[in-house]
Amino acid sequence: MSASQSSQPPVIVTAAILVIGDEILSGRTKDKNIGYIAEYLTNIGIELREVRVVPDVTDEIVAALNALRVRYTYVFTTGGIGPTHDDITADAVAAAFGVSIDYDPRAVAMMRERFAAEDLNEARMRMTRIPAGAELIANSISKAPGFNIGNVYVMAGVPAIMQAMLDVVAPTLRTGTKILSDTVQAGLREGDIGGPLAEVAKAHPDVSIGSYPFWSETGPDTNIVVRSRDAEKLQVAMAEVKKMIREYGQRAR
Amino acid sequence: MSASQSSQPPVIVTAAILVIGDEILSGRTKDKNIGYIAEYLTNIGIELREVRVVPDVTDEIVAALNALRVRYTYVFTTGGIGPTHDDITADAVAAAFGVSIDYDPRAVAMMRERFAAEDLNEARMRMTRIPAGAELIANSISKAPGFNIGNVYVMAGVPAIMQAMLDVVAPTLRTGTKILSDTVQAGLREGDIGGPLAEVAKAHPDVSIGSYPFWSETGPDTNIVVRSRDAEKLQVAMAEVKKMIREYGQRAR
Repeated sequence: MSASQSSQPPVIVTAAILVIGDEILSGRTKDKNIGYIAEYLTNIGIELREVRVVPDVTDEIVAALNALRVRYTYVFTTGGIGPTHDDITADAVAAAFGVSIDYDPRAVAMMRERFAAEDLNEARMRMTRIPAGAELIANSISKAPGFNIGNVYVMAGVPAIMQAMLDVVAPTLRTGTKILSDTVQAGLREGDIGGPLAEVAKAHPDVSIGSYPFWSETGPDTNIVVRSRDAEKLQVAMAEVKKMIREYGQRAR
Repeated sequence: MSASQSSQPPVIVTAAILVIGDEILSGRTKDKNIGYIAEYLTNIGIELREVRVVPDVTDEIVAALNALRVRYTYVFTTGGIGPTHDDITADAVAAAFGVSIDYDPRAVAMMRERFAAEDLNEARMRMTRIPAGAELIANSISKAPGFNIGNVYVMAGVPAIMQAMLDVVAPTLRTGTKILSDTVQAGLREGDIGGPLAEVAKAHPDVSIGSYPFWSETGPDTNIVVRSRDAEKLQVAMAEVKKMIREYGQRAR
């Protein structure tokens, strides 16, 4: 009887991020959303499997969205839902789903909380255009909502607003068995322990072992990260990694 | 006679970035390479059109690489060329190109510059495995080279090493007509000027006009960025944007 038979099979929920915006591809704006969402999803038990960044071009957004939404449990988009002509995400998402798009009375009501009638001009009304069948995602910062259609969550590109929207969305998501992770600082050079580490990895195929070199105060060093959805397997593999590090360290002295 | 007939047609050279690494998707490591490469390419006249981030999974790397390399002039990959078992980029690139991979004498010679024979263990020798037909990319930081095969440039994930490799690669690349860009801080809220800005954009279809809201010391503000490969068209469109901002500002007072 293998150890894994004693535990429930893991529930796997996956995701992709689609970042939309010429300003990221030109390098003018440095993305701050990918890392934030990645860490956030990991913490709630959703496994981020792919990220794409595409320009403000309808066909590119539609193609990427349709490729991602059939492959992963969820797709999170950032960017392109503002009030100006270059904000084309909502229209592209409607096109990807083959649904119509129009001013949404619920979104208009949200905008009225912030803007007087005379300020609700054509540009701001653009932000109330929502694909048919979508649910709104509240925006506590600046009111203009994101939306959810099918398994796609359309959020703002401005980090503070995206983060507020993600907080609204997260409790509604199906989550899976969290991937647990444990890190040990080897105090050794990656190239020195690559061989024995590969043997540990081979002996523990159900955990993922990553090796990340960095410079510590005393010179080249390596973080070894062991990841698994199974706490016991993680613990066993990490013990092997630590044993390997100790043994290698003694041999090296 | 249109103004564009007086100038040479622009040369367009495109690129994609493929970031390889579980640590980026888990959020453990925050990518610093996308923004750096994006800005670098823009500055030398190469247009970054797409970015993908994929995990350390051979099939995912192969599929993404094959999708990107047929679409863009160049593909730049980062990550997965270190000495440990989870570094599988070189093998995946060989698989994508359908070529063999083996220890490369040129790469071994580079490693010997840094490592004594007894330190050139199996793990470090892993970093000398290069797909058949590839040219090496020198690594001035830690010797283990990247490589170029076809239109694909395979670079390290560690930012300092990637940056050194990009400096080596850049002079060998074909570059296109630079996309010029000019920015004006509107001093106005994005939603206030979205309408007139859309009219300017419509009247100048050959330039790209982006609108990026931000918070300045005095409150909500907007940067308007005009981009074009044609300096004259950019100047004309930017003059229109500034005129619009002045007129709107006066009306608003």
